Amino acid sequence: MHDLGIEMHELIRDLYPICRSLTGNGVRKTLKILQQQIPITIHEVPSGTPVFDWVVPNEWNIRDAYVTNSKGERVIDFQRSNLHVVSYSVPVKERVSLSQLKGHLFTLPDRPEWIPYRTSYYNETWGFCLSHKQFMELKDEAYDVCIDASLEPGHLTFGEYYIKGQSDQEVLISTHICHPSLCNDNLSGVALSTFLAKYLSQFSLRYSYRFLFVPGTIGSIAWLSLKESRIIKIKHGLVIAGVGDSGKSTYKRSRQGNAEIDTVVIHVLKHSGQDFEVLDFTPYGYDERQYCSPGFNLPVGCLSRTPYGRYPEYHTSADDLSFVQPEHLADSFQNCLSVINVLENNRTYVNQQPKCEPQLGRRGLYRAIGGSGDGATAQMAMLWVLNFSDGNHSLLDIAERAGLEFGVLKTAAHALEEHGLLKEVSPSTHSKQPKKTPRRSRKMGRRKRVS
Amino acid sequence: MHDLGIEMHELIRDLYPICRSLTGNGVRKTLKILQQQIPITIHEVPSGTPVFDWVVPNEWNIRDAYVTNSKGERVIDFQRSNLHVVSYSVPVKERVSLSQLKGHLFTLPDRPEWIPYRTSYYNETWGFCLSHKQFMELKDEAYDVCIDASLEPGHLTFGEYYIKGQSDQEVLISTHICHPSLCNDNLSGVALSTFLAKYLSQFSLRYSYRFLFVPGTIGSIAWLSLKESRIIKIKHGLVIAGVGDSGKSTYKRSRQGNAEIDTVVIHVLKHSGQDFEVLDFTPYGYDERQYCSPGFNLPVGCLSRTPYGRYPEYHTSADDLSFVQPEHLADSFQNCLSVINVLENNRTYVNQQPKCEPQLGRRGLYRAIGGSGDGATAQMAMLWVLNFSDGNHSLLDIAERAGLEFGVLKTAAHALEEHGLLKEVSPSTHSKQPKKTPRRSRKMGRRKRVS
Amino acid sequence: MHDLGIEMHELIRDLYPICRSLTGNGVRKTLKILQQQIPITIHEVPSGTPVFDWVVPNEWNIRDAYVTNSKGERVIDFQRSNLHVVSYSVPVKERVSLSQLKGHLFTLPDRPEWIPYRTSYYNETWGFCLSHKQFMELKDEAYDVCIDASLEPGHLTFGEYYIKGQSDQEVLISTHICHPSLCNDNLSGVALSTFLAKYLSQFSLRYSYRFLFVPGTIGSIAWLSLKESRIIKIKHGLVIAGVGDSGKSTYKRSRQGNAEIDTVVIHVLKHSGQDFEVLDFTPYGYDERQYCSPGFNLPVGCLSRTPYGRYPEYHTSADDLSFVQPEHLADSFQNCLSVINVLENNRTYVNQQPKCEPQLGRRGLYRAIGGSGDGATAQMAMLWVLNFSDGNHSLLDIAERAGLEFGVLKTAAHALEEHGLLKEVSPSTHSKQPKKTPRRSRKMGRRKRVS
Repeated sequence: MHDLGIEMHELIRDLYPICRSLTGNGVRKTLKILQQQIPITIHEVPSGTPVFDWVVPNEWNIRDAYVTNSKGERVIDFQRSNLHVVSYSVPVKERVSLSQLKGHLFTLPDRPEWIPYRTSYYNETWGFCLSHKQFMELKDEAYDVCIDASLEPGHLTFGEYYIKGQSDQEVLISTHICHPSLCNDNLSGVALSTFLAKYLSQFSLRYSYRFLFVPGTIGSIAWLSLKESRIIKIKHGLVIAGVGDSGKSTYKRSRQGNAEIDTVVIHVLKHSGQDFEVLDFTPYGYDERQYCSPGFNLPVGCLSRTPYGRYPEYHTSADDLSFVQPEHLADSFQNCLSVINVLENNRTYVNQQPKCEPQLGRRGLYRAIGGSGDGATAQMAMLWVLNFSDGNHSLLDIAERAGLEFGVLKTAAHALEEHGLLKEVSPSTHSKQPKKTPRRSRKMGRRKRVS
Repeated sequence: MHDLGIEMHELIRDLYPICRSLTGNGVRKTLKILQQQIPITIHEVPSGTPVFDWVVPNEWNIRDAYVTNSKGERVIDFQRSNLHVVSYSVPVKERVSLSQLKGHLFTLPDRPEWIPYRTSYYNETWGFCLSHKQFMELKDEAYDVCIDASLEPGHLTFGEYYIKGQSDQEVLISTHICHPSLCNDNLSGVALSTFLAKYLSQFSLRYSYRFLFVPGTIGSIAWLSLKESRIIKIKHGLVIAGVGDSGKSTYKRSRQGNAEIDTVVIHVLKHSGQDFEVLDFTPYGYDERQYCSPGFNLPVGCLSRTPYGRYPEYHTSADDLSFVQPEHLADSFQNCLSVINVLENNRTYVNQQPKCEPQLGRRGLYRAIGGSGDGATAQMAMLWVLNFSDGNHSLLDIAERAGLEFGVLKTAAHALEEHGLLKEVSPSTHSKQPKKTPRRSRKMGRRKRVS
Repeated sequence: MHDLGIEMHELIRDLYPICRSLTGNGVRKTLKILQQQIPITIHEVPSGTPVFDWVVPNEWNIRDAYVTNSKGERVIDFQRSNLHVVSYSVPVKERVSLSQLKGHLFTLPDRPEWIPYRTSYYNETWGFCLSHKQFMELKDEAYDVCIDASLEPGHLTFGEYYIKGQSDQEVLISTHICHPSLCNDNLSGVALSTFLAKYLSQFSLRYSYRFLFVPGTIGSIAWLSLKESRIIKIKHGLVIAGVGDSGKSTYKRSRQGNAEIDTVVIHVLKHSGQDFEVLDFTPYGYDERQYCSPGFNLPVGCLSRTPYGRYPEYHTSADDLSFVQPEHLADSFQNCLSVINVLENNRTYVNQQPKCEPQLGRRGLYRAIGGSGDGATAQMAMLWVLNFSDGNHSLLDIAERAGLEFGVLKTAAHALEEHGLLKEVSPSTHSKQPKKTPRRSRKMGRRKRVS
């Protein structure tokens, strides 16, 4: 997992300099780099396309931008940081006084070294962001302002990667891909989703998995609008965002509040051995706002570390390559994998000997399990599974009731199933064995916390 | 609101000297004074009328009462305080020894300065109440006892004031009016109800409002019995009693426990910025006992300040004009008004753009609200209303879920409704605009905490 | 109750020396001693009988067992304690070296004075248990080992005592009877059940009562298998085990979790004035494992004092006659009796005057109750019963809601019923008066905590 953390961080490093926005070549370039890892399909939606209550905006591209002083020196330079330009700024080339300029400048007086990140997607204007320190050094003179950008009909670009599973019921993994040089806020989710998709693609899975790499808000709205007929297939979903900082994991429940995904993620975090936080659904945040709008009400939660807006580096130049670390990316990855492990294996069984306990000893089920180390827990797990496998409790329900980790119950259930003591309620969505040797010969369905 | 507190206290001052009881001229005189404020209808129910399991009792009237000592001095004198006579005492005129007299005297040894309040409605006897200090001074001599009262067939008197609203669904406000010179216990509720009725009568309201001024127990039983066919109209109700003392507000839930009135009152108290207490329903207390009897089970709670019996002044001469204060009456009034504001405006809407968020910016809904000061809260309120307006959540449900004050959501809902983004589920009981200019041009439906 | 505690302890003393096991003459002898108290029916189920997933095992009987050293001295002697032999040991007679012997010895190094209790029901072997102190004294020499036992086709023996009540709906009381000289673990439950049955047999009861004295696991499985058609009659049940130690009472809920028996036992413990603990159901423990298997899911909880395995004396020679005390047995007995009292009297009534409160005073219901001491509580109890007797709340539901002890509500309900104010919902299972004078003229249905 450590190596994977490093690989994710390296991907972030590659993507970091690109100037992404809602639309434009930055998103395309980003998706092309991801295609080196997984065969993402790139979709282009023309500007002007109506998507529910919205319309796909014009495409924005920027080549260069700067403010020069009377000596011709670039006092603000897009080439040094793409955060310097307010995203979606209209093209401008004019000479302005300091006071005119100030009407277009944004700084963080409390954090004088940091450049803020600002956008103006739906209000045509232009602006520059700079550190408050830079701002304080500006002299009262004339400045030449240049934003060499275009904002004109084009396309909205997003990426989609679909892994076909045994069932056409889907797990949706969505991450936003519309921020320029910000690492935790967008690149951490992009990297984790990419490597998660790459990892899962090695296995034969119960569910199908759909990975979306979309510009925030308009991207998910566009996808929901274009693929509305497919939405019924989505059984579980996660928005992944802000998963590389050093804070504890945070899970925000779906609007449903007690969907299976909610129970699964909270179970995984509870048994992760680390501190975590669970938040109720609110209609603000990342793209779960759209997936959980009342017309869809999809079972989609959001997995983060420190929630957006609660860390000072949020939406500033301090959300840089050092703010996200391989170990935190790896830990978030592991949690996602554990979640998928539970989803893949959370089945409902019926005890085939429901009257009194079956005689486990006669079947060697004590010994069979006794060998695996923690015999007492394994035996209790079998009793829990037998007692509550009445068709109304999934393995996860039983795990929660028993206070045991899901994997222990899964092992117990498999042993009992082999001996004919359990039958799955509706075995239509069984997963089969891996179709090829998984990387590092790790088997899906065997949860292992790798450090 | 301060002026209103003073007006209520002045009304209490006018009503204080009157000797009220279950029946008799004291109640009539009280209701006539209230008629100077609101056009109360006075009902007279003949003694002997069967009302459910009860029978309307004889009417009791008292002219004078005293105990004189051997010197002819009035050692106990009804003219000085109507509390001196046990309510419903039968007429008596005889000479008794001190020891015979003592069998008819009631004092409070723990509060030697206070006169207790005693009644004997359903057990024919006579008695005097006096301070323990007075009692201790009684010499061992003969006393002349006189109670110049009548207890004979007559009527039970109660008052009713009905404000017709858009809908014939009613809000019931009930207060008891059967205690003599006791201020918090009966007059505070009488004054608050009177001024609340007067205030509401200025507006065009969604609900109809029925104000009852009834003798405790037998009065509400008589009303329920006589108006049984109308009871189905009652949608919400409040018993108002003990609302002038300095204690914190207390709400006792209806028997239903989670009726809309319960949620509304608790929401209002929670957002009042002051300490408060919520009690579960118990089958003891004021007339909610009758409204919440299992044959009716009406959604009627009880709003008080310090609950009956929990303050030492309760049912003593210390519950006097100084025990109730304008500021506490005004605060209780404000809470009642806030409750009515929520009831009047608590509607259920359906989001007309339920798939993804509607684009609020395009409609100027950020700015429209941004102008009113707290833009971020207002914007969040719109998102909450949109996300949960699925036909299953009232505005109050959403307010509770969002942790926001009802008024903020109401404002958001109105803005969204104006832009066609919301539609009320069943708009049959819409309130219209005020029919005349309200006092101090305050609009119902705009909650404003006036100090 | 003190006398009863002593009687129970005396019965334990009589049963203590007998070597009980899953099967064999020890169980028979035990049941015969119980027959001196109550007319238990003794059932014999042949070895080899299939009972659900199990088969009744061979019968085990032991006459003598010892290990002698080279001097012919019995260094381990079954005659001194029947715990010395692993229960269900196969017959053996051979000479072994110390090291060979050690492979068959069990001790408790942490408790060097105590002999552990071990069984090997389903794995044919032999063994001895001894104190670690004894073990350390064994010299390196040859030993003669003798277990004069038989393990061959015979019977499984269990006892059953049925008390016919007004209704054929049953209360099941089950206790295990398969341990040798262990007092808390098996004899305390045996003694309590026996005296409870004896006590109840004096009364005419609403429910029928079935007392089972069964070897653990296989005994209850056999009973469930043989009487499967009768199981539908079981309305409530308790497994009684470990009820003589000094720990606080512990109740383990049925699998249903909120069955009437669960509410009743917890109500009784809450009002017992003593500390207690409630545990959720787990599929491990005593015979509730079988009664609560998903194919039956009977409303059977388990009443203990310190739960099995949580006291160091558990399954050791220290669980002896001094570990169980008359006062704890009596306290547990009293709790069982209180539980039965509530079960017998927990009825659902309908208020016959549901509109407003009935006039209690007119019926002398204040006085009637006022005489019994705590008038205010009694009056409140009547109001609670009247208000919530709407056909949906049992007396116990009302007691829990009111926070009052069941007996107070029962008394109130009886007074109201006598005055025609209450009617039982479905009076088919009414209990009648006792058929003979109860011992110490105590009436069932009147709960009295006797110390």
